[in-house]
Amino acid sequence: MRIGILGGGQLGRMLAMAAIPLDIETVVVEPVPDCPASAVADVIVAPYGDAHALAELARRCDVVTVELEHVPVEALEWLAARLPVRPGPEAVAIAQDRLAEKRRFRELGIDTAPFSERDDLGRPALVKTRHGGYDGKGQWLLRSESDTCSVDGCIVEGVVAFDREVSIVAVRSVDGEVRSYPLVANTHADGILRVTRAPATGPTPDATALVRRLLESLDYVGVIAVELFQCGDRLVANEFAPRVHNSGHWTIEGAVTSQFANHMRAIAGLPLGATTARGPTAMVNLIGELPELRSLMEIDGVHVHLYGKAPRAGRKLGHVTIGAATDAELEVKLASVTAAVAR
Amino acid sequence: MRIGILGGGQLGRMLAMAAIPLDIETVVVEPVPDCPASAVADVIVAPYGDAHALAELARRCDVVTVELEHVPVEALEWLAARLPVRPGPEAVAIAQDRLAEKRRFRELGIDTAPFSERDDLGRPALVKTRHGGYDGKGQWLLRSESDTCSVDGCIVEGVVAFDREVSIVAVRSVDGEVRSYPLVANTHADGILRVTRAPATGPTPDATALVRRLLESLDYVGVIAVELFQCGDRLVANEFAPRVHNSGHWTIEGAVTSQFANHMRAIAGLPLGATTARGPTAMVNLIGELPELRSLMEIDGVHVHLYGKAPRAGRKLGHVTIGAATDAELEVKLASVTAAVAR
Repeated sequence: MRIGILGGGQLGRMLAMAAIPLDIETVVVEPVPDCPASAVADVIVAPYGDAHALAELARRCDVVTVELEHVPVEALEWLAARLPVRPGPEAVAIAQDRLAEKRRFRELGIDTAPFSERDDLGRPALVKTRHGGYDGKGQWLLRSESDTCSVDGCIVEGVVAFDREVSIVAVRSVDGEVRSYPLVANTHADGILRVTRAPATGPTPDATALVRRLLESLDYVGVIAVELFQCGDRLVANEFAPRVHNSGHWTIEGAVTSQFANHMRAIAGLPLGATTARGPTAMVNLIGELPELRSLMEIDGVHVHLYGKAPRAGRKLGHVTIGAATDAELEVKLASVTAAVAR
Repeated sequence: MRIGILGGGQLGRMLAMAAIPLDIETVVVEPVPDCPASAVADVIVAPYGDAHALAELARRCDVVTVELEHVPVEALEWLAARLPVRPGPEAVAIAQDRLAEKRRFRELGIDTAPFSERDDLGRPALVKTRHGGYDGKGQWLLRSESDTCSVDGCIVEGVVAFDREVSIVAVRSVDGEVRSYPLVANTHADGILRVTRAPATGPTPDATALVRRLLESLDYVGVIAVELFQCGDRLVANEFAPRVHNSGHWTIEGAVTSQFANHMRAIAGLPLGATTARGPTAMVNLIGELPELRSLMEIDGVHVHLYGKAPRAGRKLGHVTIGAATDAELEVKLASVTAAVAR
């Protein structure tokens, strides 16, 4: 079996690695020749919507998937007329549009922040571009009535007073089976995910029902991630990613089956693997420049994952997974790692 | 960093996979172009001792290692004059020669079966070729005095009455640190490893001291495996492999750090990872032909590892790892897997 992936970044790299033990070959379409996935997958060097690249993908592959949501929906539709595209174009199209995404959540009875196409939610309010935002980009906070901006092509959202940011990664098989990883707690800085603690400790509302509703409404196949705000015992959905997700990287060592292996299993029509956590786990992103790795690797239970990328401010260069026997031990190790990473 | 590997079989494939998260590139020398490692490493298609291939390896790589012991020692010596070869030529040379291997064990005070260069050990006795045997090949059992054979180029061994076959995988760093994985119990059939249970249950003698002595005597860097017979509370060394080993495949999911990751860490001069078992684990080899994999993958905690090889009688095509919360649960799952594999 051969699987095509639109996108050859670190997610494509880790998907392609998960395919190897299943004897599944991977081909990525990516405009950057020496992309992270090139270490392990064939690369068709082209823009994601390139007609020749898509035709080659359709000819060579049995199934196509995506590692990023910012691909032309028309490309996915063209492919979907020829071979299975998992997840399908609709899921990606909705994830590309914050307004469609919030409407879908609302239709499914999933809580969201108040939202509007107009600037009629008072202050404070968040204005977000409907399309193309990621890692906190394309967002503006309006604090007082005197703060204004054009909301053309934007969605206006009420500000949610949350206790913490959490996310759930789940996977749905071709047969419709759904399995969810435990809810995890995420810490962001400058709009970029820094640390994930898995499973989230303390009181955690159940997110499995909402992610199942979302997956079923999209007739989704593969891994999905939903980012949520926890407000007491209430979960407020912020957005979903129609792909494997940074807040699921801990699953490589921390869960019985990684999100990458489960995405491959799902889209290849194979049975899903167990999504149980194997113990307290943390994930720390390596952003902008790499820390001194040797001292990190001396900590028992630390695994380094580099993406083969050159350093650049704000760029995700890799991540570190930390495993421990207890939550307390995890916090001690995590403190060492975050100190080394911040240095 | 770029690491050269002599041999591109499944061990080379899994070593190359373990190198990717460390941003280490791998180049294998292997006469078979579509070898298992070709899915993930660069391949120099040539015999292991080919002068041009070795020169290319020396030019392109920072360190060289082996994934099999049947490589010309002269090739390793030629390379070792130019760049670090880990483990070194001496370890490989000794592992190639059953007589030298047994003598080394004896010198180190490690128990072995009685052995001789002559047929003077009585009956029963095992006659084994000194060089080139593997997976039970090149061995003859002499049952009675009327059974005879030439012992030219052979070693004659007394037959050990053992309770079970066990093995220990250990790793030594450039700095001389040694870490051992737990002793595991192995089941063979037709001279080929079928099942590993890790950690071995029941009373298990300590093998860490003997493997440490062996590693230190060889000034060894990387992963080693020692196959042993357990006779009550006594361990009798049979042979060692100067490389990652089939009885260590369970470590990919079953230990904190896999043998492949630890070999890469060691030979790259990085700190070793923890060798602790994460829970009861079994490994089942897939030999000759593949079973129906779907039903295996439906068992929680089962991971399939295929090597990209065409089916052939007696050929190792892949393995399955089985994780469980308890030994009892493991035995139930293992029974399902071995039944499916034997079908």
